[in-house]
Order: sequence, then structure tokens, then C-alpha cells
Amino acid sequence: MDPALLQEVIAGELTRRRTEIIAIDDRLTSMVDRLVGFVSSGGKRIRPEFLWCGWLAAGPAGTAGDAARGVLRVAAALELIQACALIHDDVIDRSERRRGAPSTYRALAKEHADAGLAGDSEHYGLSAAVLLGDLALAWADDLYAAGAQALDAVDRSLPVWQAMRTEVLAGQLLDLAAAARTTTDPALQAADAMRVNRFKTAAYTVERPLHLGASLAGAGGATVDALRAYGADIGVAFQLRDDLLGVYGDPAVTGKPAGDDLLQGKRTLLLATARAALRCDKALLADLDAGIGTAGADVDRLARIIASTGAVQEMEQRIADLVASGVAALSAVADDGRPVVAPDARARLVELAHAVTDRRR
Amino acid sequence: MDPALLQEVIAGELTRRRTEIIAIDDRLTSMVDRLVGFVSSGGKRIRPEFLWCGWLAAGPAGTAGDAARGVLRVAAALELIQACALIHDDVIDRSERRRGAPSTYRALAKEHADAGLAGDSEHYGLSAAVLLGDLALAWADDLYAAGAQALDAVDRSLPVWQAMRTEVLAGQLLDLAAAARTTTDPALQAADAMRVNRFKTAAYTVERPLHLGASLAGAGGATVDALRAYGADIGVAFQLRDDLLGVYGDPAVTGKPAGDDLLQGKRTLLLATARAALRCDKALLADLDAGIGTAGADVDRLARIIASTGAVQEMEQRIADLVASGVAALSAVADDGRPVVAPDARARLVELAHAVTDRRR
Repeated sequence: MDPALLQEVIAGELTRRRTEIIAIDDRLTSMVDRLVGFVSSGGKRIRPEFLWCGWLAAGPAGTAGDAARGVLRVAAALELIQACALIHDDVIDRSERRRGAPSTYRALAKEHADAGLAGDSEHYGLSAAVLLGDLALAWADDLYAAGAQALDAVDRSLPVWQAMRTEVLAGQLLDLAAAARTTTDPALQAADAMRVNRFKTAAYTVERPLHLGASLAGAGGATVDALRAYGADIGVAFQLRDDLLGVYGDPAVTGKPAGDDLLQGKRTLLLATARAALRCDKALLADLDAGIGTAGADVDRLARIIASTGAVQEMEQRIADLVASGVAALSAVADDGRPVVAPDARARLVELAHAVTDRRR
Repeated sequence: MDPALLQEVIAGELTRRRTEIIAIDDRLTSMVDRLVGFVSSGGKRIRPEFLWCGWLAAGPAGTAGDAARGVLRVAAALELIQACALIHDDVIDRSERRRGAPSTYRALAKEHADAGLAGDSEHYGLSAAVLLGDLALAWADDLYAAGAQALDAVDRSLPVWQAMRTEVLAGQLLDLAAAARTTTDPALQAADAMRVNRFKTAAYTVERPLHLGASLAGAGGATVDALRAYGADIGVAFQLRDDLLGVYGDPAVTGKPAGDDLLQGKRTLLLATARAALRCDKALLADLDAGIGTAGADVDRLARIIASTGAVQEMEQRIADLVASGVAALSAVADDGRPVVAPDARARLVELAHAVTDRRR
């Protein structure tokens, strides 16, 4: 995928939508610019990369000119879905920072307070963030429709697009339901974490973008199966790396505070694994539990307790295993002996499997 | 429009989506049932009625069987957009009640508290409501796509659908921006209220549903122009009636607390008009301003102050004028002398103009 071309497509589409909003009322300029800035400047563009690989995987699909532009419009749609998910998630998780800057609802609240506007700044920030996320979700659909229509691929890709949207929202709801559980049983917590990982992250970060790309190209069932098997594994591994970064990541690189997941009390597989290992050390377990989700907790100490249980190595091993099994799925061959994933797409997917699971941010 | 058939389409579609969600995890049952219940049971189905009239206005479009079902799927999509708007609006406005029951975020918070779940019940309610609203918005697009495809009308209706979604969200953002203004100038407040009325309500309650229905039927430009002129007027009149009900409505009929708009400090044209009239009675104006948006304020007294200014009669007059001009727009004739709006659609629209602007809930 050509990142510069993706950037051009995103900038072009958002400029057009921005103009529409400002034509309705120019007082909406600063709000809409916050959304445009968030989508234009940020992110690792992981979903577009996987979409593109799914498109290539089907074989000799056109990659130049109009076809590429159609795929990149759908890629831009994925970035808008992600913008909605992050903007709303930050409200839900009460996250202060995102991509090295204040989270959207925090930035909007500050803008309101700085301008001395009427009403409660915090509630204004939350309200505007909810609506800007909605706008991103609506625009995502518009971009998907434009891209899929240009490729004459609505019939074959729409079910994938719809399933992806439902899954990511179900995954977020499941995350809420899991967080609301009162259980302290590490096995139940681990099972919950894996289900959330599967739907909230894996499906919509890797598996469905690949599937969507393949469906745009009209790929056959065997190609789709191989891509989805890869996607399910690499997607979960991606999340497990994210969980490790949420505890051990460098804030200067991740753009989030140190130990952010610990302070937020996020119920990760890493934490469930550490708690399981501490089953026979009740004092240390109580110590860990007391700190998780507690403002002002000593995150370095909590991180050391978790590491001391061997949970970090266990996560590293699981990541390595998932990368291996995911990559292996790409080697499937059809009855006629030909690979089901085109060689150039496969090479890029092997590269990406390592890149997204062995990253620092 | 056959309300029973609409109900059947809504129930059928939502049952299918509900099953999808529960297949992901059956712990999501109670959350998704809350959304399904909200959409299935509630509302005046005003937008579907106007959509249907827009469809009929173009003339001899098929109204039986598959065609009707396609239009009703788009009608169901409008009800889902409305569900998203109301669920998110109640979070934004901190509304306690809706359609005679606790608002969605309040009901979810209570469910959390009653079940003794982990975490902050209020924040859980807000979070789940944000996500259920997102789900409604995503499903709305799916239903629109299904309906428009069945009618082979995607190309001609998609721009209208997209414009409607952008407009309603821009209207909601504008409402926030207007509420955050520190001005106390009644003229500026009146201008703000009219802009919000135009985009947040009129466009998406009347004008765009009519336009969308007409576009599904492939109506010509003159028909669309007449419908939109009617829609803009009747939509604003609808909102002015809503503003009156927000102050003088019977809670047993509206399903909202008495004087809800006053307690919420909603900046309506009614209030701006009353404030303008009180310009020379500084004491009474201060009295009114002190009560608006204040918890525990004497809403009966505030309502009497507003009525004493003549603002209520002024609103009634504006509603009557808007109904007259809206209905007049339907009488347009083409160059060949034929009416641009089919007679049966026109008769129904005249009826609806009165029904939606002279209602008690």
C-alpha cells in the first residue's frame, strides 16, 4: 500500500465533508477540525495495510489508478471506524491521553473552558466527543459505499463490512459487560479477556480488514479462509502485545501514560495470568488487586509484581505461537497445488505479522 | 403507510440482528434487548410516515409487496437513526425520562446497580448507551442499504441518505455550540434556536425523509422541490410545537417530566421570544433567567411568566403560518399543468401537517 496515496485519499475526502459541515454553520469549524485532525494525523494505519493485503491476496487484481483509489477509500473508511471507536472508547475508559496528545473529549473540554463558554466544560467535552464519534461512524459508511461502488463490489463486500461493524461494537459492549463482572476467578477473567480480544480487537483489526479486502477483489473461499485464520491469530497476538505495552511501554513512544492499563484497571489476559500464578501467594495477590484501577497506585511496583509471576514470558510465548500458527495458515494450497494467497501478499503478511506483534507503540 | 407492516419489518430485522449479537456472546442479551425494545415499542413513527408520502408523491410507484417492503426497510432505518439520536441526546441532555420510561442510560445504570455489578453504575449506563447508540447508527445504514438495493435505488437515494445523516449530527453539534454561547441577547438566541431547529429537527424529521422517499421512487426535481419546501416549514412547526409541549405539555401524555425544557435550560425560540418581550422588565427577566436550567425551580411559575409575555401566542401564530405556507408548497404544478405531488400523497401530507403540529405528545 502506498501510504502517501492513502493520506491523499483521506485528506481529500475529509476536506469535502468538512466543507459540508462548515456550510451548515461555520461555528462548527473547530469541532469538525478536531475530528479531521485526529483522522488525518494519527495512527499506525494497520487496518488499511491489512485491507490492502487482502485485496492483493486474491491475485492479479488491478493495483493502479482507479482500482487502487477505490480500495483506499474503503481503507479510509476503516480509519474512520477506528476514529469513532477510539473517541468513544476514551470517553468510556476516561482516558486522558491518546496518540501523544489529550484525548478528544479532554481536548474539547479544555477548549470550552479556555474560551470561557457557558455550561459545564467536562460535560461539553463528553457530549461533543459522542457526536464527533457518531459523525466518524456515519462518514465511514459513506466512504465504504463510495469505494465499494467504484469497484463494483458492493454485493460481495457489504456482508463483510456489516459483520465487522457489528462485531467491533459487540466487542466493546462485551468489554463493558466483562468489566462489570464481580468475579475474581482468574480463569473466568482470562476467558473474558480472550473473548474481548477476539471481537473487539482481532476481528476488526486484522481478520475483517483482510476479509473485506479479499471480498472487494472477489477472492474465493479458500483464500478467505486462509486470511481469516491468519487474521484471528495475528489479531489476538496484536492485542497481547498491546496489553504488554499498556504496562511496560515507554510513554514517550506509546503516547499514553506509563502503566495506563494498570491505572484504568483494564482486565487483560496478562493480568489474569499473573493473578492465576499468584493463587498461592494471597498476600501478594491482595497487594496487586489493591493497586489495580486505583488512582495514584505505584505502577512500577505493580508492573514488577506481574513480571515476577512469569506472566510476561507466558504472553511472549503466546504471541510467538500465534505468529507461527497465523503465518502457517498462509501456506495453504488449493487442490491444483497453487497457493491460495498470492506470493507477494503472503510475503507482506509475514512481514506485517512480525511488525504488528513486535512493536513499541 | 401500513403501520402493522412497518412494525413487522422492524421486528423481523431487529430479531435477526439481535440473534447475531447474542451468537457473539449471550451476556449481551439484556443490553441488545434494551435497544430492540426501544426501537420496537416506541415513537410516533413520524419519519416513516413522511418517507412513505415522499415515495407516493412521485406518482404511480408500486406500493404492494416487495416495493413496499423495500421502502419500509428504509423507514426502519430512519427509526434506528432516531434511536441513536435520542439515546445519545439523553446522555448529552442528562434527560431522566423518555417515552414514559427511564431514558436508556438511566435504565442501564439502574440495571447495573440492581445486579450489584462491579464499577460505577452511572458511568456504566453512559458507556453502554453510547455503544448502543452506535450500534443503532450502524444498523441504520445496513437497513438503508438493504432497502435501497431491493428497490434498485441506491444511486439516486444515497446522496440524500448521506446528507441527512450529516445534517442531523451537524444540528446536534450546533445545538451544543449554541448552548455554550454566553450571549444573553434574545435576538442572537432566537437566531441560534432557528438554525438548530432547521438542521437538528426540520431537515431530518420531515424534509429529508420526504426527499429520501421521493428519491427512492425516482421523483423529478419539481416534486422534490415542492416536498422539501413543505418539509422545511412543517419540520420547523413540528419543533415549535415540541417546544411548547416541553413547557406546557401534560407529562402523562408526553412521557417527559413537566417543564422538562425549562429545567434543562433548553434554548428554544419560545424562550428567546419571551426574553425579548421582557427586555424592558428587567426584574421579571432576571427572575425568569434565574429559574431556567436550575434544578428545583418552580416550573409552573416560569411557564406562567413565559405565557404572560405573549410568546405562546406568537409561537402558535408562527406554527399556523408555517403550516399554511408548507401546505401551499404542495400545490405546485408542472409546465403541463399537472400537479407535481400526486393527489393521494398531497391529501395525506395536508393531514400530517396538522397532525404533527397540533399534537399533545
